[in-house]
Amino acid sequence: MLKPKVRIGMIGYKFMGKAHSHAYRDLPFYFDPEAEPVMQAIAGRDREGVETAANKMGWASFETDWRKLLERKDIDLIDIGAPNNMHVEIAIAAAEAGKHILCEKPLAMNVEEARRMRDAVKKAGVVHMICHNYRFVPAIRYAKQLIDQGKLGHIYHIRTNYLQDWIMDPAFPLVWRLRKEACGSGTHGDLMAHSIDLARYLVGEISEVSGMMETFIKQRPLGEMSGGLLAKTESDLMGTVDVDDAVAFMAKFENGAVGVFEATRFGKGNRNSNRFEINGSKGSIRWDVQQMNELELYLEEDPQGIQGFRKISCTETVHPYSEAYWPAGHIIGYEHTFINLAHELMRGVAHGESPSPNFDDGYRNQLVLQAVSDSAVLKKWVSISE
Amino acid sequence: MLKPKVRIGMIGYKFMGKAHSHAYRDLPFYFDPEAEPVMQAIAGRDREGVETAANKMGWASFETDWRKLLERKDIDLIDIGAPNNMHVEIAIAAAEAGKHILCEKPLAMNVEEARRMRDAVKKAGVVHMICHNYRFVPAIRYAKQLIDQGKLGHIYHIRTNYLQDWIMDPAFPLVWRLRKEACGSGTHGDLMAHSIDLARYLVGEISEVSGMMETFIKQRPLGEMSGGLLAKTESDLMGTVDVDDAVAFMAKFENGAVGVFEATRFGKGNRNSNRFEINGSKGSIRWDVQQMNELELYLEEDPQGIQGFRKISCTETVHPYSEAYWPAGHIIGYEHTFINLAHELMRGVAHGESPSPNFDDGYRNQLVLQAVSDSAVLKKWVSISE
Amino acid sequence: MLKPKVRIGMIGYKFMGKAHSHAYRDLPFYFDPEAEPVMQAIAGRDREGVETAANKMGWASFETDWRKLLERKDIDLIDIGAPNNMHVEIAIAAAEAGKHILCEKPLAMNVEEARRMRDAVKKAGVVHMICHNYRFVPAIRYAKQLIDQGKLGHIYHIRTNYLQDWIMDPAFPLVWRLRKEACGSGTHGDLMAHSIDLARYLVGEISEVSGMMETFIKQRPLGEMSGGLLAKTESDLMGTVDVDDAVAFMAKFENGAVGVFEATRFGKGNRNSNRFEINGSKGSIRWDVQQMNELELYLEEDPQGIQGFRKISCTETVHPYSEAYWPAGHIIGYEHTFINLAHELMRGVAHGESPSPNFDDGYRNQLVLQAVSDSAVLKKWVSISE
Amino acid sequence: MLKPKVRIGMIGYKFMGKAHSHAYRDLPFYFDPEAEPVMQAIAGRDREGVETAANKMGWASFETDWRKLLERKDIDLIDIGAPNNMHVEIAIAAAEAGKHILCEKPLAMNVEEARRMRDAVKKAGVVHMICHNYRFVPAIRYAKQLIDQGKLGHIYHIRTNYLQDWIMDPAFPLVWRLRKEACGSGTHGDLMAHSIDLARYLVGEISEVSGMMETFIKQRPLGEMSGGLLAKTESDLMGTVDVDDAVAFMAKFENGAVGVFEATRFGKGNRNSNRFEINGSKGSIRWDVQQMNELELYLEEDPQGIQGFRKISCTETVHPYSEAYWPAGHIIGYEHTFINLAHELMRGVAHGESPSPNFDDGYRNQLVLQAVSDSAVLKKWVSISE
Repeated sequence: MLKPKVRIGMIGYKFMGKAHSHAYRDLPFYFDPEAEPVMQAIAGRDREGVETAANKMGWASFETDWRKLLERKDIDLIDIGAPNNMHVEIAIAAAEAGKHILCEKPLAMNVEEARRMRDAVKKAGVVHMICHNYRFVPAIRYAKQLIDQGKLGHIYHIRTNYLQDWIMDPAFPLVWRLRKEACGSGTHGDLMAHSIDLARYLVGEISEVSGMMETFIKQRPLGEMSGGLLAKTESDLMGTVDVDDAVAFMAKFENGAVGVFEATRFGKGNRNSNRFEINGSKGSIRWDVQQMNELELYLEEDPQGIQGFRKISCTETVHPYSEAYWPAGHIIGYEHTFINLAHELMRGVAHGESPSPNFDDGYRNQLVLQAVSDSAVLKKWVSISE
Repeated sequence: MLKPKVRIGMIGYKFMGKAHSHAYRDLPFYFDPEAEPVMQAIAGRDREGVETAANKMGWASFETDWRKLLERKDIDLIDIGAPNNMHVEIAIAAAEAGKHILCEKPLAMNVEEARRMRDAVKKAGVVHMICHNYRFVPAIRYAKQLIDQGKLGHIYHIRTNYLQDWIMDPAFPLVWRLRKEACGSGTHGDLMAHSIDLARYLVGEISEVSGMMETFIKQRPLGEMSGGLLAKTESDLMGTVDVDDAVAFMAKFENGAVGVFEATRFGKGNRNSNRFEINGSKGSIRWDVQQMNELELYLEEDPQGIQGFRKISCTETVHPYSEAYWPAGHIIGYEHTFINLAHELMRGVAHGESPSPNFDDGYRNQLVLQAVSDSAVLKKWVSISE
Repeated sequence: MLKPKVRIGMIGYKFMGKAHSHAYRDLPFYFDPEAEPVMQAIAGRDREGVETAANKMGWASFETDWRKLLERKDIDLIDIGAPNNMHVEIAIAAAEAGKHILCEKPLAMNVEEARRMRDAVKKAGVVHMICHNYRFVPAIRYAKQLIDQGKLGHIYHIRTNYLQDWIMDPAFPLVWRLRKEACGSGTHGDLMAHSIDLARYLVGEISEVSGMMETFIKQRPLGEMSGGLLAKTESDLMGTVDVDDAVAFMAKFENGAVGVFEATRFGKGNRNSNRFEINGSKGSIRWDVQQMNELELYLEEDPQGIQGFRKISCTETVHPYSEAYWPAGHIIGYEHTFINLAHELMRGVAHGESPSPNFDDGYRNQLVLQAVSDSAVLKKWVSISE
Repeated sequence: MLKPKVRIGMIGYKFMGKAHSHAYRDLPFYFDPEAEPVMQAIAGRDREGVETAANKMGWASFETDWRKLLERKDIDLIDIGAPNNMHVEIAIAAAEAGKHILCEKPLAMNVEEARRMRDAVKKAGVVHMICHNYRFVPAIRYAKQLIDQGKLGHIYHIRTNYLQDWIMDPAFPLVWRLRKEACGSGTHGDLMAHSIDLARYLVGEISEVSGMMETFIKQRPLGEMSGGLLAKTESDLMGTVDVDDAVAFMAKFENGAVGVFEATRFGKGNRNSNRFEINGSKGSIRWDVQQMNELELYLEEDPQGIQGFRKISCTETVHPYSEAYWPAGHIIGYEHTFINLAHELMRGVAHGESPSPNFDDGYRNQLVLQAVSDSAVLKKWVSISE
């Protein structure tokens, strides 16, 4: 039987473009996907940049205008890795062009955009997905199974930290991720959106929040970065940082659980610490992306005397996705979360069903992001409502 | 030169009474204290219980009415370990009787009581101290030195967790720690008060909070516990839990730092997890009571490539209090925090100066506790004001 | 300038065949290699198996007789992943055919074979390499730099553990890895060879050893495994295990350091624990493959009071190979060690120079393996001599 | 009923003298011992030193000649903390004087002395014990219970490390612990004796060993240390170090298990790392003195998918000795091992039975120490034989 092909057009080729490209490239090596990803075309504004990227990463062609991708008949799926402020226009146009869509997170700049995007893909009947890659870590996926089986009992608590430290130098310039017009928010949409997604996935829907946002360094040198992430500008011209450096919120869930969430780019020494703990009536779990293959699990059902958090290497055949890779105890890394996600995306396209998380999740995530932002301004609790 | 003696009268002889008694007993063994603690008398309502405790722990006499201790001329210092609702009466009477005072935390049931207590000890001119024992962990004390030396730079973040799990069984009875009239609050005054004290000690004063309190199990069997902490009652009579099972709050500090605090008795698997992380502009620290001898430290000044959190065993002669104990690498435990505290208390009495933390700290702690409680009811941010 | 192509013919397509294939596939995606690997042909005895593997992993053609690969003019390099007892014949024939060679470890069944292989590649003037992939972990590579810079001072100690637990069930069958004629030794050549290589790389040459080998389960059901690694046979026929389940040895190094080495397949709960610690006069390092991105480093030069093992995430641009992958703090996994190795192999072929480790290293490794085996039989110390 | 009193005479008052004194002092506070320890007299050669120590630590009297303790009728038990070369004379004389004996480890300078000591206490019928305090860590004690219950199945492996770093500076002087005439051996009797005891306790008797001993720094400045452990001399006179800086050995146990042991004072960064791992057919344990309250346990009986090493805080009432101390999760430290040991000693005296470990254990330990030393000289395996 011939396997369907999914011809992909990807917009953006930097960090996320690289992660997505790699996933499409490696998917058939590890898995037997239900549809075959074809790296058809990549789009970017800078001709030299996009051409180099296409060659390097294995795309068959390139465009300098993303609209061309939508016009092409040989493209089935649009992968949106452009800055956040372009998501809405691209996604709606892609839906109207009948393309399936994978969109980077956060889905949009605000709730209104997110709602329009969700409505557009539903109306068009295309397959849609949002790229919350951490759902596809085997340890996380397995944690979800344990929770669904009731191993943790009723959930009382979730606490999450997502800490980075790459913009703590006051000389670090005002890159696009620090400008509201480009990204909508700072740490909030970049890091906190991931924690919200994991909380929604593992605990349930949030009903109410009280948030706090902080910008520690309010003026920064103007100018994008030329080279790597850590290069610095010497510009004398300063601009205002209008997004959050750090964000925190407390939450109540519909099922009675409570949550405490924190994300920052000012967590010195934490290059990329994404961790959480969940406590239920019968057990608890802990996870830290720095040891992403491991899940810590406490079960009350263990006999007294030998109760304790056990560290499980989620690399065995019984753990989700793990059979595709290496023997037990041989760890996988960051990029594999995208391969696993691509596997689900291809399955979704093959069946004409939007995998989870999709634009519904993106929209609901945006509702929480918005409520937190509003709460931080209003300085009081805000309910999540559609 | 003759060393002054400090004749102690202690009220309460359960968990904290044991910890305090041990501290007085062992202090001269390890240290050369500036005043000598004399275990003069212990008070408790139950004659048999208090007599047994006195003999077991080495007190020279006992009383069944705490007021007797205040009347006795051979008592210089009152150590208050009675339930929280008795602190105010005892402390004010003790101050008026000219006794120095060590009081368990939280200082009082509310701000008004705490203010009266503070005023009374100041008026009486007695030495006063509050028993926030974690300040006297060598690793914490050393962290304070590092922060004061500017090693962490400007502080941006503190996040604290204090997690226990001893009341998660719905059959666990309505003990005094779960009745508001006896303790004022639940997790809040018991655990969170410690985290607030550490935050005030290491980061500075809190100016504003947004809090959340939750009671997961609202009805419990009536009756105190007969035996150990984990015994259960089979009572059919149920009573209402009117204190918090869990509490969380976000905070802004006067110096611009932000904090996220959480404490719970529903953290399954966490018998006694008291941990925090502080991030500054130049470095970060982490601490966890479960490895209380260790301090994790990150310094930006380390050369690129070898930057990372180092785990310091704070058991060397250079670390506070450590020389009094064992050679480097030989750990101390929970009880030593009280010995170190007693060392400072004796120094304070010898010099006629109230050590830190004292009733001022207890009062300020109570201001924060109160603001968090108020905020949880009002569902908005509340400023700390005297 | 046109980049040279290296057309590869690979023999074997199971675990190592998959790891090597993936490395060739992904190398150009991450790096800009000095020569381009071309996945030309793969060889295996089972036609269906090898054809499926070729299609799955992206090889352009396949052969059922490895000798065909040597005859083909369109093959530049032979990658030997066949069982250990075939290495010698294939390697010598490949060298005589003028092919460059990458050979899996251990190099051979014994010292005599290893010597002949080394002599053959030298005589033929081909590029040769042995696949000790752990040398190419960024943290290990960086540790080597630190040691070479003298950061650890004079090395006194190395201790290594390599623990697995996959054959502890007595019903686990007598697979080829447990038959001496196929693999030469058990844990010794499979796991210990890796630890010896890391010790030689990081500490220096071993001069003398005292070894111990143990076979805990001496009879096992006959028959290879049909399915995955952990499937079991129900055979009534039993065969004798003639290789070691566990091996340990003490070593003296030429530079005065001492070593303690242990490897086992009976380390219950250790799926794949490969760890070591090195102590020098000025510092120490620790590494564990389960957190392979991290290097623990202790430096005496740190000020008193803040000395401690720091945990370095070797994912920054300053760390070897890391720039090719993801931003700091985003971890890589097992397979990346092979990509990094392939990068060095391509550089070697491009320059006509055998990278390190090569057949010289394989030969010296075999000398140590042999001396340990001899010592275990003789029950006394044995010197390493060529 | 009147509780018997055990009047103790202790010889030596430095590090171990302090640990033992504290144990006697605190025993009645925590436990209800079967006999009451009375701190009757302490002996030391330096009058001022011993008098100060007696006052500080709470001994009722002191002697400057240890023989006086043996003559005194008001002494029931002799606690020997003198240098190793004095153990034999004191112990035999004490036994002949009808005194019970607690002796520091290692029992003697050699097997012949140890045998004479064992014979003397047996002939005299006194209660005897050796101070291997780590057997009395709750986590170790609990591990023993688990092993005896068969939770780990048949034991295959033990590996131990005991690493310190306090003599690595070449300017560190030739203290008594580095002179063979005073201590018999270096690291071997000091640290390795502990690991041997734990191995005998948890795994069983050792039948055969192959050892290696190394002295990295062979000349050191003469002179004892004046002040603390880390003070240095500036002496120009150098002396020869005639004991081992590091020792390692491989062992076979009577029950078929194998062991790998290592101890060193050249483990830079390890102030006092005493750790081991035991692997059995059904489970494994790990322990590290730096987190001495925790036991890591792996059980094969856990369901597939959730197998992993669990970290147990051995501070619950179900864990040995723990009920005497603090609520679950409140850790104890180094000194408590001696309190627990003293508890067993008092029980032994009350019942007229020598507790475990006693002089039999000390003797058997010495057999292993001797066999390792002999093996290191002979460079071959040596059997343990009486």
